[in-house]
Amino acid sequence: MAGRLGLLAFRGGLPAAVLHANPGAYVVTFEGVEAEVPSSSGAPARFEKMGAVIKALKGAGVDRLVMAGGLARPPLDAKKLDLTTMAFAPKLMKALKTGDDGLLRAVIGFFEGHGLRVVGAHEVVPGLTAEPGLLAGPSPDKDALADAAKATEILTALAPLDLGQGAVVAGGLCLGIEALQGTDAMLAAVAATEPAKRPRARGVLVKLPKVGQDLRVDMPAIGPGTVQAAARAGLGGIVIAAGQVLLIEREALLATAEREGLFLLARAT
Amino acid sequence: MAGRLGLLAFRGGLPAAVLHANPGAYVVTFEGVEAEVPSSSGAPARFEKMGAVIKALKGAGVDRLVMAGGLARPPLDAKKLDLTTMAFAPKLMKALKTGDDGLLRAVIGFFEGHGLRVVGAHEVVPGLTAEPGLLAGPSPDKDALADAAKATEILTALAPLDLGQGAVVAGGLCLGIEALQGTDAMLAAVAATEPAKRPRARGVLVKLPKVGQDLRVDMPAIGPGTVQAAARAGLGGIVIAAGQVLLIEREALLATAEREGLFLLARAT
Repeated sequence: MAGRLGLLAFRGGLPAAVLHANPGAYVVTFEGVEAEVPSSSGAPARFEKMGAVIKALKGAGVDRLVMAGGLARPPLDAKKLDLTTMAFAPKLMKALKTGDDGLLRAVIGFFEGHGLRVVGAHEVVPGLTAEPGLLAGPSPDKDALADAAKATEILTALAPLDLGQGAVVAGGLCLGIEALQGTDAMLAAVAATEPAKRPRARGVLVKLPKVGQDLRVDMPAIGPGTVQAAARAGLGGIVIAAGQVLLIEREALLATAEREGLFLLARAT
Repeated sequence: MAGRLGLLAFRGGLPAAVLHANPGAYVVTFEGVEAEVPSSSGAPARFEKMGAVIKALKGAGVDRLVMAGGLARPPLDAKKLDLTTMAFAPKLMKALKTGDDGLLRAVIGFFEGHGLRVVGAHEVVPGLTAEPGLLAGPSPDKDALADAAKATEILTALAPLDLGQGAVVAGGLCLGIEALQGTDAMLAAVAATEPAKRPRARGVLVKLPKVGQDLRVDMPAIGPGTVQAAARAGLGGIVIAAGQVLLIEREALLATAEREGLFLLARAT
């Protein structure tokens, strides 16, 4: 039988959703990272004192851990590191050079090395991701599905390069590929396309996890704002990977898609 | 020995450059397409009357043909088609459905079927493209060359999908991939990147032809405006394919790169 769930709570609404679905979870918050849920110990932890964090989690009977919410790379004060954190420092420094993915893998390895299994928020909160099928809006037609297939091909081609979370295709032509700036920036660029250059087809946004992306700590997400940005970009709909894309504010998200007349389709992977 | 050069002159400065380098060329202009050079016959031709165009070219001793300058898809009046054009119509209609590349291939095939070899402007105008080497600005450092290599990998991955003329990479992270909107739109999106999200490295723009792109009629190009847009995007330099990218207003282009402190490097392909 599983023991208690631990929750490292960072910014945004996701930690509250985890706690709502798992009211018995042991919550750790951190100094300098605004969290919307209270820490179980009554005081925030420090990233420099991971030994104390591990001890608190174990003492509370935690054996599974969720890291939820947004977290910019925190500044660390080397003088305040405890022994456990110091022992992790060489791996951490090496991982910092390999980008966010490598860093997150190192952090997962750190907790699992201390006997805490890291799970994804979507594994402990029902409904955070989509079941396969049409979630909202009109059924996509053949042309929209062909555009979605082309966008998926583009994302697949980019996958070995640690790229490829989102792409927009309309009438077989690529209107946007997501880069560092994220989905909203890509959709703004699509919205700014000279009308004469655009094909007649409205176009489709496809959002998938990157190949090899660790969904336990880093999941693609869409919310009502994504749908609004897609509508401003003139798109006909959005296709996501079922079970692998976070639905932020699910009800508002679906209502926005209905209101804007965009289809939202979750495809089995 | 080669016969006379024919020049189908469309919009922009390129036809004048071709005529300057080949003062004996026979020039054909078209109704509805503003050209900066005068037609040799004294009157513009019509796209519906390609039989007359072929006859005029042959009569003038032309055996090689350059199509130069910008051309939007011209409206055709079916009632005015001559027999030669009408015979080409079925292929043309089919090609129209395959996108610009297919259309251009069909047009090349049409002229070559009439014994006129189609050549690229860069084949008849010296200096339109770059020799391998550093053209302007400071030498790129190791990190910039690594970013250029990563951008090239991205373009190579996208090549089978009829994509991949331009990409920007900085510090190993992709800041932009050129889509339908073109290089300038991509650079504007890079310029709009939240500074906190950007890596410390300035970044490099790589411009290459797409794999299979027919350089005789469709060549990637950079000009002074490209360099300015790259400077506004904070980039450290531009890498192009030697011999395969048009240098628009070469002197102004190189002077702009020097003034903005951007390197411009042509890489042998």
